[in-house]
Amino acid sequence: MSADRIFNFSAGPSILPLPVLCEAAAEMSNYKGSGMSVMEMSHRGKAYAAIFDETKADLKRVMNVPDTHEILFVQGGATLQFSAVPLNLIGKTGKADYALTGNFSTLAMKEAKRYGEINIACSSEDKNHTYIPQEADINPSQDASYFHYCANNTVYGTEWKYIPKTAGVPLVCDMSSNIMSEPIDISKFGLIYAGAQKNMGPAGAAVVIIDKQLAGAYEHPLTPKLMSYKTMIDTDSMYNTPPCYTIYIIGLVLKWVEKQGGVEAMAKLKAERAKYIYDVLDDSKMFAGCADKSARSGMNVTFKTASEELDAKFIKEAKAAGFDTLKGHRAVGGMRASIYNAMPVEGAMELAAFMRRFEAENRA
Amino acid sequence: MSADRIFNFSAGPSILPLPVLCEAAAEMSNYKGSGMSVMEMSHRGKAYAAIFDETKADLKRVMNVPDTHEILFVQGGATLQFSAVPLNLIGKTGKADYALTGNFSTLAMKEAKRYGEINIACSSEDKNHTYIPQEADINPSQDASYFHYCANNTVYGTEWKYIPKTAGVPLVCDMSSNIMSEPIDISKFGLIYAGAQKNMGPAGAAVVIIDKQLAGAYEHPLTPKLMSYKTMIDTDSMYNTPPCYTIYIIGLVLKWVEKQGGVEAMAKLKAERAKYIYDVLDDSKMFAGCADKSARSGMNVTFKTASEELDAKFIKEAKAAGFDTLKGHRAVGGMRASIYNAMPVEGAMELAAFMRRFEAENRA
Repeated sequence: MSADRIFNFSAGPSILPLPVLCEAAAEMSNYKGSGMSVMEMSHRGKAYAAIFDETKADLKRVMNVPDTHEILFVQGGATLQFSAVPLNLIGKTGKADYALTGNFSTLAMKEAKRYGEINIACSSEDKNHTYIPQEADINPSQDASYFHYCANNTVYGTEWKYIPKTAGVPLVCDMSSNIMSEPIDISKFGLIYAGAQKNMGPAGAAVVIIDKQLAGAYEHPLTPKLMSYKTMIDTDSMYNTPPCYTIYIIGLVLKWVEKQGGVEAMAKLKAERAKYIYDVLDDSKMFAGCADKSARSGMNVTFKTASEELDAKFIKEAKAAGFDTLKGHRAVGGMRASIYNAMPVEGAMELAAFMRRFEAENRA
Repeated sequence: MSADRIFNFSAGPSILPLPVLCEAAAEMSNYKGSGMSVMEMSHRGKAYAAIFDETKADLKRVMNVPDTHEILFVQGGATLQFSAVPLNLIGKTGKADYALTGNFSTLAMKEAKRYGEINIACSSEDKNHTYIPQEADINPSQDASYFHYCANNTVYGTEWKYIPKTAGVPLVCDMSSNIMSEPIDISKFGLIYAGAQKNMGPAGAAVVIIDKQLAGAYEHPLTPKLMSYKTMIDTDSMYNTPPCYTIYIIGLVLKWVEKQGGVEAMAKLKAERAKYIYDVLDDSKMFAGCADKSARSGMNVTFKTASEELDAKFIKEAKAAGFDTLKGHRAVGGMRASIYNAMPVEGAMELAAFMRRFEAENRA
């Protein structure tokens, strides 16, 4: 890491590639000779239209989005999608299936319940969401309008290793915390959504990738106009002023991802970073992983020691050594190291080394 | 203006104070020794909490917001408020009054119609929104849940010069394009909302100032959780991740406003900038103002020549001379000079001089 930067393990908003920040800073008050900041540009003007179109095209290429699907940039984060998904889609049968594997999938389910009948197709709540249910243990309903799951559970440090088969029921996935971390077959999904603030950019924008056939047909009559997928498709995400600057930063991140080698390279780096830290957990007599081995997330590593006091000591000393925001979510306790795309491999490597040193120094 | 910057007359997103952009650039990759960009900070962490709290306190002080009212930072711009206002407030009687004085008040009314019965209390549509109805010509209904108007009409270049009296009916105002441009008595309003991207900061956040008594009581049961004013008050705008960086820039703009002398100074500068351009219109045999003199906006000056060809020539030559984004909205045609808080007085002065030169050179 550069001299004055820390290793930031925040779960989101989270670390961004340093070259992205440097480029944004360099062109802050005069973007490519336009005499304006990107923040100051009319969203209907040529200069911003070029940024927007390029970002969308780059995302389409990086994520290999087929022509059947449309990319939207929306506001309100994943949370507003918790409402938008049922408002737009549940009208087909009035029912939907939800897989509960953590905090956000539970919030999504609770919100959807206000708009229709919800079947809990599977849940890991019995073991505090430390695992991902096996495909054989999923009980889909016969007439769901869609099947919803959250691909990576930021709070608990678990990640789905398979894409559930749904026999023609549209698959809806919250990918907020692992989007662009590996290649995925978008054609298997009816709708993907993701808050930008983990792997894509700053907070303030969310990306929706939607099978165009799903938009409009079953929209609830009270759907706020800005939350209508049909409206947003028809206006190319510009029914009103979009979060222009956030989208511009997403564009810079996409160029950085491509320069590293795209999502294939992201997948390799993801495995490499995670291995450094999980290897410590597997070797350790002090640190234990919170998630079941079969479900370990490549984005958020949750772990703890045998005591809250030792956890606190670890977090404090880690912070002093430049490893920031390692405190676990209150639902799990202990520690959480979020190692998103922008985390340099050295960040994971050095944290692993620090953990080994800490264990050696604090052995009972 | 500095050597490499243009005078940007965009209606929004729009010009920001250069010192704000310079400060943002300087601390982009390391905010005040934190080792992080503001974009990378956990919204629950101490560093960001300090930025958020200070921004909110600064806004409260700058706008003199009384303790009866709460300040919210939300997403989705003014447009999502077009839905949020009726979803949260219209339930009291099922009815609301709307004053139609332009593009956005009409959009707000159309959206509200989906949630209740709307009375058009007054309209300037008969003269293509070139004027603001007089208070005596407003016909409020007897049992409206609220009265809605838009204080400044960006497209048409008109601005309300009075605050309508509503005999106890909560007054709801879209102040997107003139917020913070002069002192206002917040206690007269039930709810004020404003997209940030004109006088406050970049696109991607809106500010809501709401009388706390209005929140919750009449909320529609299908209100998306993130659009519930009660939820947002209860969580201090952090039900989910807010648009952190946009709020930080709003904070920098607020500090700049205070340094200039607050909203009192903004009001003086507003009058000064506007006078330069309106004086040209009053003296000119070529340029005519589009708005009635009694309703002229201090934020958006709309004007045209006798021919579209000459308008186009003016816009082209102005752009070449460093006066950008002067094309009027298609609903009005001609030209529009948006002269928000961040526009230096010299911008208006130099545009006025350019207009006089253009008229002299192109006299028939």
